[in-house]
Amino acid sequence: MKRKFLGIDIGGTNLRGKIISEEGNPLGERKTLSEAHMGISRLMENLAGFIEGFAGEEISAIGIGIPGTVDRRNGTLVQAPNIANTKDFPFTEVLLDRIGTNTPVFVENDASCAALGEHRAGAGRGSNSMVMITLGTGFGGGIILDGKLWSGEDGFAGEAGHMAIDPSGPLCACGGRGCVETYVSQVAIKRIVREHAELREKFAGTEESAIPERLAELAREKDRAAISVWNDFGTNLGVGISILVNVLDVKTVVVGGGLSGAWELFIGKTLEEAERRCLGGAARGLKIKRAVLGDDSGVLGACYVAKKGLGESS
Amino acid sequence: MKRKFLGIDIGGTNLRGKIISEEGNPLGERKTLSEAHMGISRLMENLAGFIEGFAGEEISAIGIGIPGTVDRRNGTLVQAPNIANTKDFPFTEVLLDRIGTNTPVFVENDASCAALGEHRAGAGRGSNSMVMITLGTGFGGGIILDGKLWSGEDGFAGEAGHMAIDPSGPLCACGGRGCVETYVSQVAIKRIVREHAELREKFAGTEESAIPERLAELAREKDRAAISVWNDFGTNLGVGISILVNVLDVKTVVVGGGLSGAWELFIGKTLEEAERRCLGGAARGLKIKRAVLGDDSGVLGACYVAKKGLGESS
Repeated sequence: MKRKFLGIDIGGTNLRGKIISEEGNPLGERKTLSEAHMGISRLMENLAGFIEGFAGEEISAIGIGIPGTVDRRNGTLVQAPNIANTKDFPFTEVLLDRIGTNTPVFVENDASCAALGEHRAGAGRGSNSMVMITLGTGFGGGIILDGKLWSGEDGFAGEAGHMAIDPSGPLCACGGRGCVETYVSQVAIKRIVREHAELREKFAGTEESAIPERLAELAREKDRAAISVWNDFGTNLGVGISILVNVLDVKTVVVGGGLSGAWELFIGKTLEEAERRCLGGAARGLKIKRAVLGDDSGVLGACYVAKKGLGESS
Repeated sequence: MKRKFLGIDIGGTNLRGKIISEEGNPLGERKTLSEAHMGISRLMENLAGFIEGFAGEEISAIGIGIPGTVDRRNGTLVQAPNIANTKDFPFTEVLLDRIGTNTPVFVENDASCAALGEHRAGAGRGSNSMVMITLGTGFGGGIILDGKLWSGEDGFAGEAGHMAIDPSGPLCACGGRGCVETYVSQVAIKRIVREHAELREKFAGTEESAIPERLAELAREKDRAAISVWNDFGTNLGVGISILVNVLDVKTVVVGGGLSGAWELFIGKTLEEAERRCLGGAARGLKIKRAVLGDDSGVLGACYVAKKGLGESS
């Protein structure tokens, strides 16, 4: 019988599930609320129920993308800044206990899942090595080398948001200073607007979560201060990309996540800065592309994590 | 018959050659002058003569470590800042033409060779993934992932010296600004001494090439300005290491090259800064070690490049 793989993406709002065939064809999808903000117990309960809903599907393996640091070897959720009480949480063990299934479960960081999704079925299709940058609340990274996900020695690779590009820069959630995430993320944009006398005034009354979108609107309406913020955003993204390209010599960089919606406002400066900073050899043939799968990249990548976990060729 | 592999390291002063057995045991070594400063033609002449000197040895493959950017797929030397007239030089083609041999030749960047040497037979032995940083004239990098050298899509990976850690920092030879190499290398130390009013005076009459060594002596004699330069050097090295560790999640970082001789003058600050900046998961079990093979790492790594090129298992 042909195998089927279930991929699940754990988001702040939703749990999304997708099933693919051996050949990677979509066979169906569902979603439900994650309620991740209510803590890990509620999330695990919702997740277990969600998986049980697929019981009739004869799934061969389950891949789960988690918004946090994952030790994929033992299935531990080391930390997840946006889910309470998750320090060194035995994720896979608790889940398997709860759902009582023999179906193998494989976990992976959500940014790595997104990279895998875009590589297999999106903007990175056909590339041999690739980095994907996810511009959301933070600055996530996923690395594909020689066609395979590089998750690191213990599954922690791809934390590209914490490349220090200015050691005396703003304080980062990680405790460091001047990480690229403090310049290129939703968190960064909110901080920059807050610290900008002129913009702060224009955003009085704007809900915190609506700031990035509103800043993009302002820039499209030719507001000079807003344009300048996106220019700096683009330049700093270019600095971050140049580090990854100089170190890894990947030829494809895919940029996705919610903030990539402001693409035309920052990409010019990004390309300019990347061209300035990438060494000759590494820059040759470099393509910086916009992600094409949107929210699908993560859940699709989770399907591939399931497939990979079971052994692609078996 | 058992195979033998010849590794050659092209240095600014010397050509060094070493032969290893299938099992990696050393079977002999030689050296001669490279005269690399006299340009690529003279170097190729010397290299050809050097290789011919091994004609009686029945070598199965030759690996060559080159101080420059190498396209290992077609054997082109893309650029080598310290050898004149080397832009896109067809290195392997010219060499094979000249020596008229059927022995396969494989080329690799010298910092990658050093990483391979330390990984197989030095400070990184037994590690699964590792980064080696070579602190010489510049700041070189070599990356081992899952036991294998990651040379990048076209052989240009590992240019860790050109990670921007301060976009408005000093101008770098690459054309960028604030690359870690502008803070952590011999070139950096010479610049810092030159720009430092107090130290500049103390170094009047010191030959340019002797500055790093003399700065180490001064620090050991408790000169406060010199100590402070090494402290900053160490801190910036820690910043660079944290970027590599956060992105790649390698658990072993090996630091070698001539400047590693000042180890005790900078390593304290390096460990401090790396601990501050590496994310929890990636930092767990991280070891920052001093290289143990000295100049041997490069030539030994070149032997492994030969072996790898031919197929380790064949």
